Amino acid sequence: LHSRLPAVGTTVFTRMSQLAAAHGAINLGQGFPDFDPDPRLVELVTDAMRAGHNQYPPMAGVPALRAAIGAKLGRLYGRAYDVDGEITVTAGASQAIQSAILCSVHPGDEVIIIEPAYDCYAPAVALAGGVTVPVTMRLGADGYSVPWDRVAAAVTPRTRMIVVNSPHNPTGAILRAADLDALAAIVAETEILVLSDEVYEHMVFDGAEHASVARHPVLAERAFLVSSFGKTFHVTGWKLGYVAAPAALMAEFRKVHQYNVFCVNAPMQHALAAYMADPAPYLGLPAFYQRKRDLFRAGLGGTRFELLPADGTYFQCVRYGAISGLPEAAFAQWLTVEAGVAAIPVSAFHSAPTESGIVRFCFAKTDTTLEAALERLRRL
Amino acid sequence: LHSRLPAVGTTVFTRMSQLAAAHGAINLGQGFPDFDPDPRLVELVTDAMRAGHNQYPPMAGVPALRAAIGAKLGRLYGRAYDVDGEITVTAGASQAIQSAILCSVHPGDEVIIIEPAYDCYAPAVALAGGVTVPVTMRLGADGYSVPWDRVAAAVTPRTRMIVVNSPHNPTGAILRAADLDALAAIVAETEILVLSDEVYEHMVFDGAEHASVARHPVLAERAFLVSSFGKTFHVTGWKLGYVAAPAALMAEFRKVHQYNVFCVNAPMQHALAAYMADPAPYLGLPAFYQRKRDLFRAGLGGTRFELLPADGTYFQCVRYGAISGLPEAAFAQWLTVEAGVAAIPVSAFHSAPTESGIVRFCFAKTDTTLEAALERLRRL
Ligand SMILES: CSCCC(=O)C(=O)O
Ligand SMILES: CSCCC(=O)C(=O)O
Repeated sequence: LHSRLPAVGTTVFTRMSQLAAAHGAINLGQGFPDFDPDPRLVELVTDAMRAGHNQYPPMAGVPALRAAIGAKLGRLYGRAYDVDGEITVTAGASQAIQSAILCSVHPGDEVIIIEPAYDCYAPAVALAGGVTVPVTMRLGADGYSVPWDRVAAAVTPRTRMIVVNSPHNPTGAILRAADLDALAAIVAETEILVLSDEVYEHMVFDGAEHASVARHPVLAERAFLVSSFGKTFHVTGWKLGYVAAPAALMAEFRKVHQYNVFCVNAPMQHALAAYMADPAPYLGLPAFYQRKRDLFRAGLGGTRFELLPADGTYFQCVRYGAISGLPEAAFAQWLTVEAGVAAIPVSAFHSAPTESGIVRFCFAKTDTTLEAALERLRRL
Repeated sequence: LHSRLPAVGTTVFTRMSQLAAAHGAINLGQGFPDFDPDPRLVELVTDAMRAGHNQYPPMAGVPALRAAIGAKLGRLYGRAYDVDGEITVTAGASQAIQSAILCSVHPGDEVIIIEPAYDCYAPAVALAGGVTVPVTMRLGADGYSVPWDRVAAAVTPRTRMIVVNSPHNPTGAILRAADLDALAAIVAETEILVLSDEVYEHMVFDGAEHASVARHPVLAERAFLVSSFGKTFHVTGWKLGYVAAPAALMAEFRKVHQYNVFCVNAPMQHALAAYMADPAPYLGLPAFYQRKRDLFRAGLGGTRFELLPADGTYFQCVRYGAISGLPEAAFAQWLTVEAGVAAIPVSAFHSAPTESGIVRFCFAKTDTTLEAALERLRRL
């Protein structure tokens, strides 16, 4: 079989989780919590199944859940999405991202991706017959930032989409209002679409505001905004997310969505709709994860790991140059096998060989897990 | 936005379900049960959530569920699939079908689709940049059958895949061993792949055997076999299915799958794995649905509806020519609005305008629902 994706192997997340399991390492690699969701959310799923919500829900999502998403977007970002025509529930953020790209990128179209980048954008562009145009983030004394001048320079008449991701995986950098303005200035007089991966929207620290494209009229008018219930409610294995977009874009999105998954898990949609009536769980998330970030950073204080800023997400990037001269992938492997703590090499988020001597740890773990990992890391 | 799928609208299933709801019609259109799954299965999901199966499961599926699928395929069809490399759990059969097509069809490749056909194959081929080559089924005195001579005549050097579906939606026809042989003769000396949609595999009546491609060595070596837990266990809204394929095909499938949904609902996979330890629920399915088919057919006896054979699926096709001269879409609409029973026009399963005076009813309903619908239909 002649491959459609010859460059693609098994994702780094799967490989590092398998390596961690094989060696009994503490898994700070793949991004998922090692603790349980709110038991109330679990009970709500049981209630929904017992109430008979077990057959096909509407293709765009259960109306009550779309209403809850719309209410959240309005409350947090001040934009009123039409819940019928502008919001669709998806089988996780990955499905939202793949369908958004497949519905809008034509063969030969260019898609600008800012690297390091999460690994699911480029394969979707390739499947659509598009061309990925990578732009590398700037890495300065105050961490990673998006070089908008380089993004602007990468635009051509074939540019169809720019993918942004804030809070940013793997770097933990966040976009600010000025970044949205810079992006808006690039796309304003064009037909370029924006795919905004905001799955870590509720993990923004130190009082910063999440710079959602929903806040920015120019961007919201041309953006697919993608988020994840898995990240927000500690249920990454439930595979539920959503996309919000203007009606014209959403109509195209649904054409692909309805033949990709047709619709999404009914009882869990009903449970999430009921659960989201109370905003406290997501409003409390910044503080919840900031405490874990601070615990993890404090634990690495005095070690030879050099901490990069971590303004959002549940990831902490560190320079390990004072500990090892290995390339990132080899160091992550060594760290897993020899030190018993799995991490993800940032090089895995680049399309071209790129070595910065930086790996990513996930701190979405119980304090017990974090302390056990820190004890191992402090020995290095 | 320039559409990737300009010919696509909202699916006929969504439209007819909405029309049924708007008019209070009994919905025998969209294919889903109106009764609940086994309460034990529901409890097993609750158990799995409480046991902490709420984070990313393995990309290919929970090992215990893949083992259960492998055991079932071995037991029923006598083929031993390697559960590590040859089985992947999907977010429903639709996702399996879209990913199977996207991973194997290159721009310009031809895909033979036998019509009437379920509506999700062609859009996936279009997204892949492929070309759909429709072949129309033969409709004789004993119902629909696949004209293998016409399929053979449609093969060209660009043919990449043939899509088959048995038991067949919407016609209720089933393939027999001789059909598999005929298909095998067409593909044997070629590189043509087979996509076999077997979501109704457990709904085969009158003692017939389901002609799975897994039974046929020539076909199994080149087939994506797709099935659905939703259809089998009365949980269409849970959105779980699977694909089985030889390792080389599966490796390509997973490249797309891992960036489409990454992985599939964890607690429900654990629940299904436990539930499938007992084969009784799926072994009992033919008798369960045959009784409903017989009830529905008996109820239409003596009416002016002419029953077509219904050898499999949970659909019954009927000719309505003695009742109305309307084209199928208009008749289905009339039936929904005026007679209070929703059906699906078979014309919706054709890529070119095709009128046979036939609509499809779904009999996966409680006896009460079926009897209420029959009462309305008998008045016509
Ligand atoms: C979908 S697996 C990876 C989870 C994740 O977002 C990450 O680790 O970056
Ligand atoms: C996925 S919605 C349609 C369900 C179905 O298989 C049908 O009605 O044909």
